[in-house]
Order: sequence, then C-alpha cells, then structure tokens
Amino acid sequence: MIIVLKPNANKAKVDHFLDTLTSHYDVKVNTWVGTQSTVLGLIGDTSSIDIEYVQAQDFVESVKRVQEPYKKANRKFHPDDTVITLPTGQKIGDGSVALIAGPCSVESKEQICGIAQRIKASGATFLRGGAFKPRTSPYSFQGLKAEGLELLREAKKETGLPIVTEIMRVSHLELFEDVDIIQVGARNMQNFELLKELGKIDKPILLKRGLSSTIEELLMSAEYIMAGGNERVILCERGIRTYETFTRNTLDISAVPILKRLSHLPVVVDPSHASGISWLVEPLALAAVAAGADGLMIEVHNDPSHALSDGAQSITPDQFDEVAAKVRTAAKAFGRKVE
Amino acid sequence: MIIVLKPNANKAKVDHFLDTLTSHYDVKVNTWVGTQSTVLGLIGDTSSIDIEYVQAQDFVESVKRVQEPYKKANRKFHPDDTVITLPTGQKIGDGSVALIAGPCSVESKEQICGIAQRIKASGATFLRGGAFKPRTSPYSFQGLKAEGLELLREAKKETGLPIVTEIMRVSHLELFEDVDIIQVGARNMQNFELLKELGKIDKPILLKRGLSSTIEELLMSAEYIMAGGNERVILCERGIRTYETFTRNTLDISAVPILKRLSHLPVVVDPSHASGISWLVEPLALAAVAAGADGLMIEVHNDPSHALSDGAQSITPDQFDEVAAKVRTAAKAFGRKVE
Amino acid sequence: MIIVLKPNANKAKVDHFLDTLTSHYDVKVNTWVGTQSTVLGLIGDTSSIDIEYVQAQDFVESVKRVQEPYKKANRKFHPDDTVITLPTGQKIGDGSVALIAGPCSVESKEQICGIAQRIKASGATFLRGGAFKPRTSPYSFQGLKAEGLELLREAKKETGLPIVTEIMRVSHLELFEDVDIIQVGARNMQNFELLKELGKIDKPILLKRGLSSTIEELLMSAEYIMAGGNERVILCERGIRTYETFTRNTLDISAVPILKRLSHLPVVVDPSHASGISWLVEPLALAAVAAGADGLMIEVHNDPSHALSDGAQSITPDQFDEVAAKVRTAAKAFGRKVE
Amino acid sequence: MIIVLKPNANKAKVDHFLDTLTSHYDVKVNTWVGTQSTVLGLIGDTSSIDIEYVQAQDFVESVKRVQEPYKKANRKFHPDDTVITLPTGQKIGDGSVALIAGPCSVESKEQICGIAQRIKASGATFLRGGAFKPRTSPYSFQGLKAEGLELLREAKKETGLPIVTEIMRVSHLELFEDVDIIQVGARNMQNFELLKELGKIDKPILLKRGLSSTIEELLMSAEYIMAGGNERVILCERGIRTYETFTRNTLDISAVPILKRLSHLPVVVDPSHASGISWLVEPLALAAVAAGADGLMIEVHNDPSHALSDGAQSITPDQFDEVAAKVRTAAKAFGRKVE
Repeated sequence: MIIVLKPNANKAKVDHFLDTLTSHYDVKVNTWVGTQSTVLGLIGDTSSIDIEYVQAQDFVESVKRVQEPYKKANRKFHPDDTVITLPTGQKIGDGSVALIAGPCSVESKEQICGIAQRIKASGATFLRGGAFKPRTSPYSFQGLKAEGLELLREAKKETGLPIVTEIMRVSHLELFEDVDIIQVGARNMQNFELLKELGKIDKPILLKRGLSSTIEELLMSAEYIMAGGNERVILCERGIRTYETFTRNTLDISAVPILKRLSHLPVVVDPSHASGISWLVEPLALAAVAAGADGLMIEVHNDPSHALSDGAQSITPDQFDEVAAKVRTAAKAFGRKVE
Repeated sequence: MIIVLKPNANKAKVDHFLDTLTSHYDVKVNTWVGTQSTVLGLIGDTSSIDIEYVQAQDFVESVKRVQEPYKKANRKFHPDDTVITLPTGQKIGDGSVALIAGPCSVESKEQICGIAQRIKASGATFLRGGAFKPRTSPYSFQGLKAEGLELLREAKKETGLPIVTEIMRVSHLELFEDVDIIQVGARNMQNFELLKELGKIDKPILLKRGLSSTIEELLMSAEYIMAGGNERVILCERGIRTYETFTRNTLDISAVPILKRLSHLPVVVDPSHASGISWLVEPLALAAVAAGADGLMIEVHNDPSHALSDGAQSITPDQFDEVAAKVRTAAKAFGRKVE
Repeated sequence: MIIVLKPNANKAKVDHFLDTLTSHYDVKVNTWVGTQSTVLGLIGDTSSIDIEYVQAQDFVESVKRVQEPYKKANRKFHPDDTVITLPTGQKIGDGSVALIAGPCSVESKEQICGIAQRIKASGATFLRGGAFKPRTSPYSFQGLKAEGLELLREAKKETGLPIVTEIMRVSHLELFEDVDIIQVGARNMQNFELLKELGKIDKPILLKRGLSSTIEELLMSAEYIMAGGNERVILCERGIRTYETFTRNTLDISAVPILKRLSHLPVVVDPSHASGISWLVEPLALAAVAAGADGLMIEVHNDPSHALSDGAQSITPDQFDEVAAKVRTAAKAFGRKVE
Repeated sequence: MIIVLKPNANKAKVDHFLDTLTSHYDVKVNTWVGTQSTVLGLIGDTSSIDIEYVQAQDFVESVKRVQEPYKKANRKFHPDDTVITLPTGQKIGDGSVALIAGPCSVESKEQICGIAQRIKASGATFLRGGAFKPRTSPYSFQGLKAEGLELLREAKKETGLPIVTEIMRVSHLELFEDVDIIQVGARNMQNFELLKELGKIDKPILLKRGLSSTIEELLMSAEYIMAGGNERVILCERGIRTYETFTRNTLDISAVPILKRLSHLPVVVDPSHASGISWLVEPLALAAVAAGADGLMIEVHNDPSHALSDGAQSITPDQFDEVAAKVRTAAKAFGRKVE
C-alpha cells in the first residue's frame, strides 16, 4: 500500500498513525521523503487494512493499493485452476464448456421434466430452474418455492442432470439439501449475511455478478464465501447496468479473461440475462466461449410466450439444440475439452 | 398498457393471448387497427401484469406501460404527503428538514453518547449509527452487532434521540425492538425476502436506493414493504454508481423532486455516502434542501481519522454544527417548517 | 408513432396540433379513444418528426416511436449487406474478417513501414496509423500530422496495404486524398459538421461509436453521412464508458449482432481501445469474430514501451501474428470466408 | 508521479527508461526499494508526462498521478477566482448568480426579441439562443444559422443583453464576431481542433461538460483553450449520462463544488438540459445555487409546445419569472452577491 502524504503533514500525527497501524497489522513501513511530498510504503499483508481508514487521516493526500484485497480467490496464491467436480462426475473449470440450461422458473412437472430431457439430449450437463424468484414487483409471480424444488428433484431423478437453483434467504437453506449447485443472484451478490452462511456449507456456489458491481467486488464476495471455508465458488458474468437501453444489461465480455487471470475460480456466462433478448443468446454464447468462459448458463423454455417469467429472453429447446451444436464447434476450434 | 403488434401478427394467437389476459386480470382490451400495424390498449389495473410476459409473445413488436407499476407508493392514489410520526413526537415529511446524524459505526459508549449529545445540541433530531455493517471485505470491521444496538439504546436514553440503524438479516429482527427507524442499506434494496418481512412489522423503514437502481425500482421496493401492510417507508437517495470516479458515488439530486412528485412518501438525502468526501457534505446537504428533501442523513464522528469505517466522509461535531446552522438558514429561505 | 394523451387533454389544442403535424409531414392520424385515456397513432414516414416536439405538448402523457428514426442505414429498407470494396480489391462486409492493424501513432518511416510489412506477413489487409491524434491533454504528443500522412503513403507504396487514418477537422480533408478509409474517432461521432462534409465525398468512412453513445445514436450519425450521399460507412464498436475501471472502456460485444440486425452496414471491433490492455486484445478479438464482426482493428507497435501513445494497449508484431492465426481458425469454425 | 515496479523488474530497462524520462522532462527520480517491490517517485513538473507511456513499460505494475495534469485551470497555481467581465459590464464569477436564459433555438425576430425582453424584466443578465443546432438526426431542424445570429444581434440591440450562442465549426468563427460568449456544446467538448482555435481568440468561452466526460477531462478541455492564450473559460455542468432513464441526463450536482475547489474558473449549471423536463428546472436551479454555482443557464420559450427544439425542457417566461425570484431569495440566503 502506497500512501502519499500532504506537503504539510504533521509529523507527530503521522508517527502516531504508523504506530497504530504496525501494532494492529503485520506490516512494516518504509518512508521515502521527497522534496515536495513524503510517500509511505506498507509492506506485508495489507489486505485487511481498510483503505478508507487510511484515506480519512487528514494528513493523507491519497492512497493506492498495490496488493489485491482478496486472498483465497487470488490466482497469485493459487496458480492452478480450481475444478469443481460434483459427486455425480460433472465438472466445471476443467477446460470443457459446461452447459447449464433450463427455464427461468419451474412451472410444472411436465414443463421442467420435458425441458430437462430436451436439453440433456442437446448436450446440457446441468439443469437450471428457479423455485424462489427475485422479482422487481411484489405483484409478479414469485416462483413455486418448495414445490419448485421438489419438481427439480424429480427432473433430476428422470434425467440425472444435477440442479442449479437460486437461494434468496438463509432460512431456506435446509430446503436446498438436494440442490447440487446453489446460485446467488445478482441482487444478492452483496447480501453478506447470506454469503457468510454459504461459506459454512459444503456445496458449490454459483455467484452472479451484481448489476453494478466491479470485478474486484465480485471477487471480494467470492472471498466472503471462501473465508468461511467453502472454496468451491463459480463466478458468473451476467451483464452489467450501463446507459445502453437496447439490451436489458450490457454483457461485460472482458470480465471473462480478466477474472480468469486474477482468480483461479471457474467463470461462466449467462447470455440470457445479459441481453434479455432471445436472438442475442447465440452470438453472446459463442463470444463467451471465444473469450475463455468455463461454461454457459442459458434460459430454455418449451413455450417462451407462456413463460411465467423472462419469456423474452428464453430460447426454445430446438433453438438450444442449435446453440449447443455451435458451442461444441467453437469449443473444438478454441482447443477446449469436448467429449 | 399499449401493445404494438408486429405487422404479420397471427390473429388466432393474439386472440388466445387476449383471452388469457382478460381472464387473469381485471382489464379490458381496446384494439386499434392501423394500415400498417395494430395497437392494443389495455384498460384497468395493469400494474400486476408482467411486462416481460407480454414482450415474450412472438407477435408483439413492443410494449409501453402507461400506468406506473406501483400503487401504494403512488401519489396518484394518495395525493397527500405521508408524514412519519414517532411515538416520541419527531416527524419526517411534515415540511421540516429532519436531521439524522451520527457515526458510520457505533464503536464505544463514550463515542456514541458523546456524538449524540453534540449533534443534539446542534439541532439533530435523530441518531444514526451502524451496529451491523455491510463491508465489501470479509476482513474489515463488521460492526459491534448486538453490543452496538445496546450502546445505541444507552445513547437514546441519555439524549432522547430516536435511533436509526441498519438491518442486514431477517433473523436479527428481534434484536431491533428498541430501534425507532430500521434502515435497509443500498446493497439490500432488492433483498426482497428482507423487504417482505419488514412489511409485516410496525416500525418506519428507511429504504436506501441501490447503487444502480432506477427511481422506479426504488419505488417498487417500497411497494414490497407497503404491500405487506407497513406503509411507513422513508425513501433515501444516497448516490448512484456512474463512470465518474472523483466521488465515490454520484448524488442524483433530481431524484428528490421526482420521488416527491411520483410518490407521497418522504425523501431524505445522505450526502456523506453520496460523495464519500467530507468537504462535499455541506454543499450537497444544502443542495438537497433546495431540491425539496424532507431530511438529511449525515455521518458525524468525533475523530474521523480514527473511525473504524467511513472516516473519509465523516465530518466532526464542530463541522456538523456549522452545516446544521446553514441548513436551518436554507430551510427558512425555502419556506420550510423550522422550529 | 404512438402518442398517449393526458386524461384531461384539451380537444381544441389536440386538433390544432394534429393539423400542424399532418400539414408538415406525410402522416395520417388514427385516434383511439379509451375510457381513461386517448391514444393517437401516426402512420406514414414519422422518421423526421422530432419526438421532443411531440413530448413538449402539454396534453401529451408520453410518446413512443414504432419506426426507427434512421432510414438509409436501416436494414428494413436495405435487406442486403453492404460490402465495401476498395479500388485495390480489399473488401469489408463480404463475409470475411478484415484485419486492420498498425500503430496508434505514426512515428517515423522505419516504424510505420516496418510494422506494415510485419502485419502484412501475418495476414493484415489494411494498415491503420494515426497522423492527427486526439489527446486529452494539450501537452501530449499530437501526431506527426501532414508528415504522418506522407509516411503512411510510403508504407502503402511499399506494402500495397490500404490506409485507414483519422480526421479531426473539416479543413484537413484535402490532405486525405490518398487515404483509403477515413476514420471518425469516438470523440467526433457527433461532430455533425464533420459528418456532413464526409457525406459529400467518395471514400469509405469508418465511424467509431462514441464513448457514451447508444446504438441508435451511432446509426443516426451514420445516417448523417449517408444522407449527404456517401453510403459507404463502416461502423466500429470500440468500447463504451461504464463504472468498471479495470478496463479503460467496456467492450459492448452485444452491439455487434444488434448492429448487424438493425443495419446493413459492416461492423468492425477495436479490442485495443475497448480494453486499453494488451493481454485482452486476443480474447476480445476472438469474441468479436464469434459475435459476427466483419473485421478487427488492432493496435500493433514494434516497441510498445516506447510508443508515443497508447503503448499499454498495443501488441507486438509477434503477438499480432499469433492473434491473426487464431482469428483465422475461429473464422473458419464460424463458417466465415477465409482465403 | 508514483510508479510501482513489478517484483522482477529488469534493472537495465528501468535505468534506460529513467534516463529517457529525465532527459525529456524536468523531473528528478527518487527510488524507494522495498523488500517486495520498488517504488519510483518523480518530482518536478510531471503534468506533461503521458501516464499511458509509463504504463506501457513492461516492468511497471501501476502508476499514480499525484499532481493534476492541468496547470492553467488549476486553483493551486491560481488561488483567486477568475471573474469574467464583459465590455458591457456583466460579470460571471464575482459572487453573484448569473442568469443566462433564452430559447433553445432562435426561431424568428418576434420570438427572440419577445423572450429577451421578458427574461430581462425577470432579471436575466445574458441571452442564450441557438443559431447552429447540433441534432441527433440529420432530418431535424438544424437552426437558422447565420440568420439566427443576425436575430440575436437585434435582440441584443433591443435589450442590451449580451449573447451566448453555440459554435459547431471552426470556419463559422467569423460569423461570431458580435457574439459575447461563445458556447462549446457537450458533444464538442473533446473536439480538440475547435478548442485550439478558441484558444486563439479574445472572447469568453462557455465550455459544456461532455455527456460522459469526467471532471478531470472537462478541466483538460478548458486547459486546451487556456493553453492557447484565452484564459476566460466558463465551465458548465449540464448533466451526465447514467443508467437512469427518467431524466434525459443526470445532473452531477457534486461537480459544482468540486470544480470550484480544483479550479479558479467560474461554474454555471444548465438544469434544462440536465433533466430534459420543464418541471425539474426550478428545483435543480435552486440546488445549483445551494451548491455554489456562479450562474444558471435556463431554456425559456414563449410557447414551449411550438418550440422547434427542446420544447419538453423549456419553461415559459412566466415560469422563469418565478424561478428567477426564488433564485434571488436563495442567493441572498446563501450570502451571494445580489443587486
């Protein structure tokens, strides 16, 4: 951490500040006195020092972190890729392109089982489907809840596809026992109390980037989960909020190679939420593979125009079949592991 | 709701869709057939119709809401200003400028009681202070938690100032019995499960706008609380995330008159979080009063450079005294109720 | 154009407004009177009606365009892809992936000719290089200007590669006679006076999207050029400004398939400016091909660490050779025309 | 400038780089060698060093400016406020709140003279009006051009109000001889060729902030004009582009006190363009005064619903009269100079 002092910094105050710092944190201080300003360099583990605390000192001109504030999620300390392996054998992060597909909301047994069978036939390896749904309006359909989880279980029994579904509340955790990968939605990316609880369990967590979260904030939220002991986190880029209104969100495709470089965690992309438009799913899915994504999360609905939520961005099983085939071709071209 | 059909819309499908709509919702349909396109107008209570469901129909070109999707928060249906009155008499929304002040985090008895006495002397009518703190890093100070709430209680006993403090988790609700106004932080504005629970209790809720939430989304989150039965919601503008990096966030000053026009709920402004810079607190506080805010929420710390969080944006009690005096002058000039 | 009137709209005023509209524009009005509000539908060519003029009427609740405001750039009226063919045979928009490469700034004869030869050997078909440079600071290197154009001409003579370079001022146009494709930079995308002049000449224009321009605004700027008679416009996505600070800009990859759908004009992507980071050039270039881009514009410098501008985002000729090879592999996989 | 080197930085390369720096710029280098990384501190005038050039060195981890890159616009070097005084006596920046008002576009002699007389009676001290209009669509009204300037001259003759109007092209400069303050619009804030020419003339320039320009970029554009010799620049905040769609732009009210602190140049606010909504003009104007603005620029039209442009954001002369009165009351309350 580099701290630039103001020209007229009070020496006694600075010394007192440095004493406090070195007594609380395992850091050493190097001072460089220039002709116009003085620069302090903190050496050691500065990741737990609050940068705002430093900025608040009245003798500080500015502060700059050299070290990233995340450790367990940091590739520097864990150079090898994290590979998430489910008990049933499916992997994310092993060089293949994982295909997670399914409807926005679970609506009925016929719907979820029908879709599960169709996407499995097309090559999907995970089934997604919402049981608890975060909706902007309290008057919108909020999901089938526990019944939705039950239907997902049945679809899993029929197809063998592991389940990915979203949790919205700590007290629901007991209902998620048979869920294979627990999803944290974009709106809850900084629901730190939820993250802490998920850090205590033994299941992979798919963590979606918040609508206006930076890449570093996403990694810090992963760090929350990992700090609790659960290191199986999958990062998900799903579009960020910008001024452009043509798409619902703007897919930040650069986040994929950046996250892969900064962190060892696997990265998947959700082209459906990123765009909100079904005809954009294919080009964005292919772009994600080209950029190095470890997987795709795609909304598929047997009858998008009757979907109880997110119909405008869902593709049909037939369309998914085409997308999956093109994804395989692309994966091969980019030297990815393809079965 | 205005629905523009595609030029080649299939009539049978459209009719089927309209039958579904009119059987589920209390709406009537008016059709206007143009030479190139057909427009449908839905009349009645369309607020619970999911606009995405309509957009997902393959014969729909575009959809436009005429009616706002919020009802209980809507000034159209509640023309009079909502005034929040506490049992101890303090009011928000009655034409006065409420002054809510205090430290980011409660740190000790001396700190919180000392600040409470100072701000009370300067004219503050509410004490804010964080006991549970949402922090980006799991390694940062997370607040004194239950002990912090206890210290707030003591400060209230000493000064009579009602308490405003943030909740982060449904299961903490029982600890908040003596809290006067429960705050929902920006990161939890769309934590719908928390909002639903807060809709069931009988305490005013101060709801902060999310970092990238639209004005309409803020009102929809207020609607979540109100739909549950708790109509005492205070809206809080605290800066939004933009590309500008000089300030931590960008205060959306326009949101104040817009929220006052769209809704009957009181609106307060937090210039401390909006800017993240202590010397901006005064001009932004005055701008908020000029724009019509019902109150201000300001971080005050006896010793900002030793604050355990948010020091850079906190002002001292002496500075608060000056800000409060200028706020009173401004409030008078703008014809606001001043004691 | 759909116009929703306020419930209490004054009939005489509305009639007067409609008389004005129909006498100035070739449109017909259809009125649909609902029980609560009245909707007007304008039929005909509404593209030249100023939507703000309509919104300014005090009896208007809201307005919605059904028709896009651009005509010449609109694929609806020109279903076939525009292919730009240079006199020397190179094409953009014919199904191939055009490779435009070269340094940010032309610095010397050795530099530009050396780079030109290296990129040509790697498969580039166009040479880019800045002679007039838009710089944020008046104290930064502003380009070699006329001398830079002269050096580009020499590089073209040596290699046969057509030249793409940026214009910043109408009065410079005469210097650009030997330039093959004139580039309009992001900061000048809405320099309408420049666009109008470029509409009068007979050279392809590469139009970069402004840092905060919407997709529709980009198309409207293309329309400015095309309205003047020059229909050979190449659109360029080069990253937009968002809150994310890791990258200089955020590549809006969705803009590629959207522009291809809305317009018949070719679309190229500049991964160098989009990210500002050299190690992101390859993954973003491949993502652009996957998303359907007609070409790539890549900064290549023989010695990035001594580049007079934009060194941090430039790749070396060796790195470009690798990127070009991977782009060819990707192009083949996606069924693109590859020589 | 603080430069953090990578842990494994090549010493010979670093030394060569430093030799180059110190031979080109008047700076000295201080080196601080830590146990894990080395930090370089450049002392002297680093404002003309291109930060990207430094970042492009492969041995550089990161760079941080300590010194601002603008000099002539910097309050540090010019502590006193710049006051712009016109030959006719009107001042901007002297502690008063300058009122600049008038229609978006000049439309006819009756219109401009009528409005000029009305706003003068209400206390306006400058007349604004567009003769050359930047419009998103080539098919929209582009202004009366030279004739518009002629009409402005007549309005000035009738009322004595100095004229503020926008220039869009260098070659139009000769037409602007009788214009008192030349405006550079938001879309041309980084039209550096135009800025350079305006630096050579002897007239105050009102420089509007670009839609997505940072505060520092605005100051750098002012620096372009000032570097040419024309130091009479007025900065104008007119709203920035964010994700919020309720308003056309988001007024960045914080920019006012920030610009006043960083620079000695006067700062005016345009609440009309910032919001795009006439009923927001008053609260935003008052907020701007509260935040310390040196002036307001407000669109006034005798008949907004027939305005050829920007009608939705224009207020009537009657409404302006009210706003002006409230601005005076606010100015007094905030201790501003009021006649």
